[in-house]
Amino acid sequence: MLIVMKSDATDEQIESVLQVIRDLGFRPHPMPGATRTAIGITGNQGVIDPAHFEYLPGVGEAIRVSKPYKLVGRDLKHEDTIVRIGDAEIGGTTPAIIAGPCAVESREQTLEIAELVAGCGVKLFRGGAFKPRTSPYSFQGLGEQGLKILAEARERFGVYIVTEVLDTETADMVEEYADLLQIGARNMQNFSLLRRLGNSRKPVMLKRGMSATLDELLLAAEYIMAEGNYNVILCERGVRTFADHSRNTLDLSLVPAVQNRSHLPIIVDPSHGTGKRHKVIPLSLASIAAGADGIMVEVHNHPEHALSDGPQALLPEMFKRLVVETRAIHKVMAEFGTEF
Amino acid sequence: MLIVMKSDATDEQIESVLQVIRDLGFRPHPMPGATRTAIGITGNQGVIDPAHFEYLPGVGEAIRVSKPYKLVGRDLKHEDTIVRIGDAEIGGTTPAIIAGPCAVESREQTLEIAELVAGCGVKLFRGGAFKPRTSPYSFQGLGEQGLKILAEARERFGVYIVTEVLDTETADMVEEYADLLQIGARNMQNFSLLRRLGNSRKPVMLKRGMSATLDELLLAAEYIMAEGNYNVILCERGVRTFADHSRNTLDLSLVPAVQNRSHLPIIVDPSHGTGKRHKVIPLSLASIAAGADGIMVEVHNHPEHALSDGPQALLPEMFKRLVVETRAIHKVMAEFGTEF
Amino acid sequence: MLIVMKSDATDEQIESVLQVIRDLGFRPHPMPGATRTAIGITGNQGVIDPAHFEYLPGVGEAIRVSKPYKLVGRDLKHEDTIVRIGDAEIGGTTPAIIAGPCAVESREQTLEIAELVAGCGVKLFRGGAFKPRTSPYSFQGLGEQGLKILAEARERFGVYIVTEVLDTETADMVEEYADLLQIGARNMQNFSLLRRLGNSRKPVMLKRGMSATLDELLLAAEYIMAEGNYNVILCERGVRTFADHSRNTLDLSLVPAVQNRSHLPIIVDPSHGTGKRHKVIPLSLASIAAGADGIMVEVHNHPEHALSDGPQALLPEMFKRLVVETRAIHKVMAEFGTEF
Amino acid sequence: MLIVMKSDATDEQIESVLQVIRDLGFRPHPMPGATRTAIGITGNQGVIDPAHFEYLPGVGEAIRVSKPYKLVGRDLKHEDTIVRIGDAEIGGTTPAIIAGPCAVESREQTLEIAELVAGCGVKLFRGGAFKPRTSPYSFQGLGEQGLKILAEARERFGVYIVTEVLDTETADMVEEYADLLQIGARNMQNFSLLRRLGNSRKPVMLKRGMSATLDELLLAAEYIMAEGNYNVILCERGVRTFADHSRNTLDLSLVPAVQNRSHLPIIVDPSHGTGKRHKVIPLSLASIAAGADGIMVEVHNHPEHALSDGPQALLPEMFKRLVVETRAIHKVMAEFGTEF
Repeated sequence: MLIVMKSDATDEQIESVLQVIRDLGFRPHPMPGATRTAIGITGNQGVIDPAHFEYLPGVGEAIRVSKPYKLVGRDLKHEDTIVRIGDAEIGGTTPAIIAGPCAVESREQTLEIAELVAGCGVKLFRGGAFKPRTSPYSFQGLGEQGLKILAEARERFGVYIVTEVLDTETADMVEEYADLLQIGARNMQNFSLLRRLGNSRKPVMLKRGMSATLDELLLAAEYIMAEGNYNVILCERGVRTFADHSRNTLDLSLVPAVQNRSHLPIIVDPSHGTGKRHKVIPLSLASIAAGADGIMVEVHNHPEHALSDGPQALLPEMFKRLVVETRAIHKVMAEFGTEF
Repeated sequence: MLIVMKSDATDEQIESVLQVIRDLGFRPHPMPGATRTAIGITGNQGVIDPAHFEYLPGVGEAIRVSKPYKLVGRDLKHEDTIVRIGDAEIGGTTPAIIAGPCAVESREQTLEIAELVAGCGVKLFRGGAFKPRTSPYSFQGLGEQGLKILAEARERFGVYIVTEVLDTETADMVEEYADLLQIGARNMQNFSLLRRLGNSRKPVMLKRGMSATLDELLLAAEYIMAEGNYNVILCERGVRTFADHSRNTLDLSLVPAVQNRSHLPIIVDPSHGTGKRHKVIPLSLASIAAGADGIMVEVHNHPEHALSDGPQALLPEMFKRLVVETRAIHKVMAEFGTEF
Repeated sequence: MLIVMKSDATDEQIESVLQVIRDLGFRPHPMPGATRTAIGITGNQGVIDPAHFEYLPGVGEAIRVSKPYKLVGRDLKHEDTIVRIGDAEIGGTTPAIIAGPCAVESREQTLEIAELVAGCGVKLFRGGAFKPRTSPYSFQGLGEQGLKILAEARERFGVYIVTEVLDTETADMVEEYADLLQIGARNMQNFSLLRRLGNSRKPVMLKRGMSATLDELLLAAEYIMAEGNYNVILCERGVRTFADHSRNTLDLSLVPAVQNRSHLPIIVDPSHGTGKRHKVIPLSLASIAAGADGIMVEVHNHPEHALSDGPQALLPEMFKRLVVETRAIHKVMAEFGTEF
Repeated sequence: MLIVMKSDATDEQIESVLQVIRDLGFRPHPMPGATRTAIGITGNQGVIDPAHFEYLPGVGEAIRVSKPYKLVGRDLKHEDTIVRIGDAEIGGTTPAIIAGPCAVESREQTLEIAELVAGCGVKLFRGGAFKPRTSPYSFQGLGEQGLKILAEARERFGVYIVTEVLDTETADMVEEYADLLQIGARNMQNFSLLRRLGNSRKPVMLKRGMSATLDELLLAAEYIMAEGNYNVILCERGVRTFADHSRNTLDLSLVPAVQNRSHLPIIVDPSHGTGKRHKVIPLSLASIAAGADGIMVEVHNHPEHALSDGPQALLPEMFKRLVVETRAIHKVMAEFGTEF
């Protein structure tokens, strides 16, 4: 914490701020400057809200200095975390691919897509059984029936199941069927849900909220880890901005930023980030080139029924090609190493 | 829904889009133009995702036309909704004031502030017993003990209790003590919670999410109303933007925009919107002048302990003055009428 | 400037940063903390880019502390600046109203509106002769002919002319006719234009850029003042956000924020900020209630030709009422004083 | 243009809107629906502001349908534009690299970096002689002296010069020395400057404004092309959002979006977009993988003077590696083709 006094702050005001800091059990470090005095504070173990000092007489500004998270940070754990799901891994040497339909709509559709996905050597299969929908009148998912279909896909094709946990009420049920539990963007700060999954033994994929800062994303992960679940994967899926040419603005600079501060793996979801199929492949490749630990994409099986499928889902041929190209780009990256 | 064909779309492509529309049971209205053809669609009762048409050959763009909400809209109910809480009301002729501490910290603090608030003739008393916190290491509220303190404040000073429901787990408990149930900004799209409070007989105040559009806010209210609870109050509390001179950017244009589309009352929370005490009074008065149905502000009692209180909370003298000034501004407004 | 070292920074790295600071002629103030060391820097007269230190070994973060502006700040000049235009003033005790058509379209239209505006006792008449347009194919203004019409309005109705200077090429011409020179939002960082008007003897109204921070707005004003023109008025006109219910998001919290840091007057333009007529009156009143030094609104004269007028322009009766109501609200504010 | 009537619009109101459309010389296409009537408009050659219809009685909404640009769009010109600068090209089969210092600081620095850049086989050399600066007290560039140094670099190392034109006053001078004229983000809507460079015979690189939509960027390019200069290159450099982990949010989804609508080449500047060196390489590679026609990066020569160089500039070894890696990634892309 740093307190910057106003240029016309009196000696009494400065002394009074020093005393407040001492009273709190911290140590003040006054630094008289040409036009104003700044006061550093050390000794604070937890988080102090800078705003607390802002109304003391003579104070110009209070600036937070230390980061408020611990378990997610590289200060405590230097080496990268690798999350293992059976014989698949996220955060290891190869970028992970998570693929499947947006929602489980039927047994037939789901098994067909699972077969396609598994056939490409992709082990992580996604599909929503409980869907968060902006309108109460939209399709909300098949629920447990959907989970059973996903479980069948796992049995038949050897894939691992990635699916969203929408609320604490259905967490037990989803946990029973899924291999990797997804927390959606709207729930990034649903603290009860974060804590619930912090008590799960299944790994958790946490999507960035639509207007979440990096710190908020890391602190949401900290909620999960603070409960004892250290297998957390972060996921960039686009943020909300003024830009209207894509549904969200995919923020790939989050990838190196996360890697700089945290040991947790970070993947990218360009399907939701862009909302348009023709942008999914370019931005998937871009995610890999930016160093992401993986991508999550939506695939559908029946181009002729494109009407009922999401316009952001890849057609089978596009997906096959994406898998090949992703690996080719990663191979180039691996040859050069990643130590910039 | 309106489909705009590309300028080089062929007659076959246009006919094919017309057929798809007919197959869906809707009625197409082709409009050949100088450079391109547009196709209107009528007959759709529910919501069609415009994106569904975007990948049909020859289609340039698909544009949504109808609004996706019903119960919140003025189409179904023209006159303004007035929410009554005992003998207090929100949405009536006088702007409501909701005031109290950010969090219930102690019995003494809470009762002192409640006395101050009630002494100004303000009937709606706010205070958080369950607090959503970005960091797992921050104070999370007193829980039921806090609710009991609030109930005591009600008994002693005749105020009504406004407090946040953080999750479905604690909803029963909060519902038992509170008079007006608050849904926080982070929970605006926590659909399980929305549905739970839609089944409550207590009125609900729904805060706008940090990057929620007007439509999303109205659809979140629709979730509550669709369950049968029609006593919903909307609350603007600032959105997240690039601007760094205030914690959030208070969006007062939401007030007339809500009033244009919905019959629900809309209030403003300038304490959270601005994050700084010296901005709370100007923006409270601005909210009333913009036509809001009320304001919600934070008050604290011990200026000498300003350190532990929020820097956005008003001191007692500031609050007393705000109440008087609010009423004076509203009186001016009322003299001129509100029919612009 | 404050340098925060990494938690694992070595003593050598810290000493090396101290030396760099000394070499630059500044004074370092090391503050060893529980987990990391911070280093304050004093003695810097100008602006140092914090980023410069960020790549020195062991450095975690570099944080700017001093504000980079001088002439616009309250540090150098405590009392509010009042800009006088003839016998009108902005920043004085009464909120200023600037009104007129968006663009000068014809002599008849302009004179009619000027008569209406002057008839309400409003002295500052706006109208664009050179119009910035997003598309090269849109109407770009009447140019000098428009300026002559404005000058005629001044002569006949005793109003002062507020009009935009679009570029340095036409600055001389506009300066000759206008009483208050407007710099549009798109030109807020057109530094050649800022400097040109800094050399004018006419006062300047500087509109905030569509995504300008408070600091950038103040520094743009600093460009003008640094050339010797101290008669600068700031203008909030809405910023660009994700919100889609209004053309821009009017940021009224800028008003108290500017007043906190700068002595320059700040007015609000709700016509451009909201883009819709039914929002202009509520947000005009809100601006006054927020403490703005004035408002700028668009007015048109022929409701029956609303087609060719901007949908954000007020009809004559609306404008008359706005003037009366603005004054009534200001009267309430004045009775209570403005010292919060 | 599509007009959506309110659900309670009367037949008279609908007829009246139809008549207004006919009076304007357009053709109305009424489409009665279950709950409301929509009216299509055809025959409009130019741009109609949708807002013009919004205040006619019974009108609910007016929606713009046609895109307002012509020359930049793929409707008029299907095949990609390739901009040639001597024997270099942008928009061709190989991604272009533009590299050099942020500002020309000295002859020695500039020539050293030019030698490094040319030595990597990179032909486009950037360097600012006139610098746009937020503060009037910051270094504003060497001016003509800087241009002469750049010209010397061209002579000695055979590179082409890319440099910014800051204003119309200095346009003649810059045009004389430069091979590719850059328009900075702050000037994207400086229409006088756009028109001035539209009359140049040198190609122009237009950077996206900090909060510019895709349409605004394309219309700014339209200004240049409307004057006759068809050699325009677009440049994404990050937009301003709430995100605070990077200086700007690099919006790579703009790349496929531009390619979808326009034939103009689009490059990416990750140096300004991210503001941090460790993000420049990942995001450069990501830009290429997203299909950009090139990148523009900052390079500095003296890591030991990193203090005075920008923290976003690449060190020589990093740059060499970036060039190699960029080409390797592009090679992968080329093998797979780009027809998604």
